[in-house]
Amino acid sequence: MNGVKSIFEPTTVVLIGSSRIREKVGMTSPEMFESVIYNMTRLFNGETHIVDIEGERGARTLDKLPHPPDLGVVMLPPRESIHLVKKSAEIGVKAFVLLAGGYKNHQRKQLSELRHEYGVRILGPNTIMGVINTSNGLNTTFERNLMPQKGKISVVSQSGGVGACLLDWVCSYGIGVSKFAFMGDKIDVDDVDILLYFDKDPNTKVICLYMEGIEKGREFVEAAQNVVKRKPILALKGGVTKEAAHRALSHTASVAGSDVVFDAAFKKAGIIRVGNIEELLDAGIVLAKQPPLKGDNIAIVSNVGGPAILAADAVVKSGLKLAMFSEKTRRYIEKRFPGVEAVNPIDLIADARAQRYSAVLDVVLSDPNVDGVMVINMLKSCFFEPEDALAVASTAKKHKDKPVVDVPAGGEDFTLVQNVLRKTYLPVYNLPEKAAKALEALRAYDRVRAVKKSN
Amino acid sequence: MNGVKSIFEPTTVVLIGSSRIREKVGMTSPEMFESVIYNMTRLFNGETHIVDIEGERGARTLDKLPHPPDLGVVMLPPRESIHLVKKSAEIGVKAFVLLAGGYKNHQRKQLSELRHEYGVRILGPNTIMGVINTSNGLNTTFERNLMPQKGKISVVSQSGGVGACLLDWVCSYGIGVSKFAFMGDKIDVDDVDILLYFDKDPNTKVICLYMEGIEKGREFVEAAQNVVKRKPILALKGGVTKEAAHRALSHTASVAGSDVVFDAAFKKAGIIRVGNIEELLDAGIVLAKQPPLKGDNIAIVSNVGGPAILAADAVVKSGLKLAMFSEKTRRYIEKRFPGVEAVNPIDLIADARAQRYSAVLDVVLSDPNVDGVMVINMLKSCFFEPEDALAVASTAKKHKDKPVVDVPAGGEDFTLVQNVLRKTYLPVYNLPEKAAKALEALRAYDRVRAVKKSN
Repeated sequence: MNGVKSIFEPTTVVLIGSSRIREKVGMTSPEMFESVIYNMTRLFNGETHIVDIEGERGARTLDKLPHPPDLGVVMLPPRESIHLVKKSAEIGVKAFVLLAGGYKNHQRKQLSELRHEYGVRILGPNTIMGVINTSNGLNTTFERNLMPQKGKISVVSQSGGVGACLLDWVCSYGIGVSKFAFMGDKIDVDDVDILLYFDKDPNTKVICLYMEGIEKGREFVEAAQNVVKRKPILALKGGVTKEAAHRALSHTASVAGSDVVFDAAFKKAGIIRVGNIEELLDAGIVLAKQPPLKGDNIAIVSNVGGPAILAADAVVKSGLKLAMFSEKTRRYIEKRFPGVEAVNPIDLIADARAQRYSAVLDVVLSDPNVDGVMVINMLKSCFFEPEDALAVASTAKKHKDKPVVDVPAGGEDFTLVQNVLRKTYLPVYNLPEKAAKALEALRAYDRVRAVKKSN
Repeated sequence: MNGVKSIFEPTTVVLIGSSRIREKVGMTSPEMFESVIYNMTRLFNGETHIVDIEGERGARTLDKLPHPPDLGVVMLPPRESIHLVKKSAEIGVKAFVLLAGGYKNHQRKQLSELRHEYGVRILGPNTIMGVINTSNGLNTTFERNLMPQKGKISVVSQSGGVGACLLDWVCSYGIGVSKFAFMGDKIDVDDVDILLYFDKDPNTKVICLYMEGIEKGREFVEAAQNVVKRKPILALKGGVTKEAAHRALSHTASVAGSDVVFDAAFKKAGIIRVGNIEELLDAGIVLAKQPPLKGDNIAIVSNVGGPAILAADAVVKSGLKLAMFSEKTRRYIEKRFPGVEAVNPIDLIADARAQRYSAVLDVVLSDPNVDGVMVINMLKSCFFEPEDALAVASTAKKHKDKPVVDVPAGGEDFTLVQNVLRKTYLPVYNLPEKAAKALEALRAYDRVRAVKKSN
C-alpha cells in the first residue's frame, strides 16, 4: 500500500503519546493524548494500539504488536517523536502522522533522514490535528467526538487554526465531508501528494484547500491542472496582502509568494479561488451535490419580492445572467397560477406551498433558456413550511442536468429548512448573495473543465 | 402626540380584522388575524381592543370604546380597511398601521383623502408586518411571539420579505433591536418621517435601512445629512443592477433610480452602504455597541495563526491598517509572555486563556499606535473556554475610547462564545472577514461624523 494511502486508510494504527509530558508551545499534554485515544478507540473502525511511553510496558508494547500497524500517530515533543518514529519504522510501520510541533531545523532534518532511510511517509510534524476520514472513522484530532457527517468534500489545510475552524463549521452546519488533512510543517507529505491521493479517492468529489504558501509551485500547478479534469479544486489563500504575507512567512515557514503570482498560478491550474472560509464551503457543497452549471442563465423562484430582487442583484454581480423565460413557460405559469407574474425573478406570492413551488420549478427547469435555478423559500411572513422544501428537492432531483440551490433566507428559517434538507442533494444557503457566489463557482468549474478537457 | 410617534408609542391600540375573510394575495386570513391578536395581547404593554368586523358587536365595539385609541392596526382587504379607517378616524384614532395589501390606485387615493380629511397618519397599506417596538412590546406582525431582544438598532424595510428576513436574523442571533418599521406602499408615512422619528428616539442609536427606491430624493438626502450628525444610517439597496431594478419597479411601486445616482446620494447624505443583510446587521451591531474607530490602525490578538492571517488580509482589504506596536507594548508582551512574538497580528498561542488575553489586550488598547482591536479566540484546537471571553469583554470595556470586536471563528465556537457575550457590549462575528467589514463601517461613520459636524 502506498504510504499516503496508509495515512487515510490504515487498517491498524499505533497511537503513541505520553500520560505525563505537558508542553505548552508544542501542544502535547496528557489530556490531549487522552482525547486522541478517545477518538481513535471510539470512532475508528480499524484496530488501534495505544503506546504510552511513560507506562511500564511503553516501548515494549511496540515490539509485542502482533503485526506492524500501517500508521503511527504520534503526539510527543520533537526529541521523543523522532525516537519513536525510528523505533516504529524498525518494526515496519509505513506511515506517520506527527501531531505536535516545536521542531527546530535540525530536528526536521532528522525526520527527513528517517523518512528516506526507512522509506516511510510522514505527515507533519506540527499538524496539530492530523487527519480525519469519515469513511473509516479515522480521527486523530484532540477534539473529542467531533466527527463531520459523511460526504464528498475533502479538505486540506496548511494551518491548524483554519483547519479547526473549517472542521467546526462543517460539523455545525452538517456539511458532508470525506477527508481532512492538516498539513503542518510538511517535511515530507505535501499538498501535491494529497492532491494526487484525493484525485484517486472515490469518496472525494471536491477538494477544498487553505494555503498560505507553496514550495514546489510548478509541480503543484501541474498536478492541479490534471486533477481538475475530474474534480474541482477550490482554494482560499491566506497572506494575500503584503502585510499579512509577511506574517504568514513566519507562521507556517512557507514561501508566501506575491498574491499576483498566486492568482496567475491558480488560473493556470484551473483552481477556483474564494474569499473566505464560508465561501470555500458554500462552493464546495454545491460542487459536491449538484450537476454542472452549463450556461449563465439563472432563474429565481421565490415566495417573497425583496429577497428575490437582492438575489437578482447578486446573480448579475456574480457574472451570471437572469434567464428570459420561454413563451411556453410564461404561458403555463400565468394560466395555471393567475396572479403570479411569469417574469424572472418570479414571485410565487407569500402563500405558495409545495405544490406551487414544484409545478413552477418543474416547468422552469424544463425551459431551454434556463441553465440553473435559485429557489428562495422564506418561512417568516409566508405560508411555506419546512417540509415543503422536500418537494423542491425532489423536483430538483428530477432534472439531473441542471443545478438548483435553495435559500431559506434568514436565521431560524435557514436552520429549519436545512434540517429538513440535510439528507437530500439540495444545497441550502442563508442569504441569496451566498447562493449566487456558490453558483458562480459552479459555473467557473464548468468552464475550467471544458478548457482542460479540450487541452 | 405627533402621529408618527403614535405609530410606535401608542398607549391604546384598536386592532381591527376579520375572523372570516381569507384573501390570498392581500394577506388576510382568520389565522393571521389570530396571530396578531396573540402578539398584541401578550406582548404589548399598553391596552389593546380587538374589533372583529364579523362579530355581532363588530363596529359597535368601536363606538363603545371608553376613550379613542392612539393607534388603529387594520388587517382587512382594501374596501373594508378604508371603511374602518374612516370610522376609526371619526371617533378620534390618530394613526394607523395597515397590514394587508392588494390596493388599486383609486383605493390608495381614498386613503390619502382620509389622511388629509382627518389629519391622521397612515403607515402602509401593504406593510404586511407593520411595526415592532421592543420598549413597549408593540408587535403587529403575524409571526407569533417572535420578538427581538431589546437593543439600540432600528430597522426600516421597504420590503416585507427583506424585513421578515431581518427580523428572523435578529431574533435568531439575539441582536438587540429598538424598532422595526415595514414601510409597504407609503401612501403617507415615508422613509423621511421614520428617519426624523428615529433621530429623536432615545432608544435608537443606529438606523438600518433596506430600500429599493425613493420618491422624494432631495428631502431624504437632506434629512439623512442632518440625522447622521447624531446617529449612523446604514443602507442596503435592492435593485442595484439594471435587471433587478426593473423588477423592483413593479415590486414596491417605487422609482428605482440608477445605482450610480443612489451611490452619489448615499455619499452626499453620509449614509454607509453595505452589501447584504448580514453586513447590514454586522455593521449595525458594532455601531450600537462600540465607541467610534478614530483611526485606521487595527491590532489583531489571536490564539491561532491562520485565522489571524486571514484577519490581517481582511483588515487591509477593508482599507484599514495593521497597527505597529510601540516599543513599550512589544517589550511588555515579550517580557511577560516569553514565546509570544510581539508582532501584529499577535499569536498568543493555543493555550492562551482569560488571563493572557486580558493582559495583552489591555496593553494593546493602551498603545497610542492602536485605534481598535480584533480579538480572535477559537475554542477548537485551542484551550480557550467560552467563559474566558468575559475577561476579553471586561478588558475591552475598560478602554471606552477604542472599539474591540470578537471573532470566535467557526460554527459551534461562535454560538458558544456568543451565548456568553450576549449581555456584554462586545460584538461577536463568526469570521474575521465579517468583523473587518464591521470595523470598516465603524471607521466610515467616524469619518462621516467628522465631516458633517464641521459643516
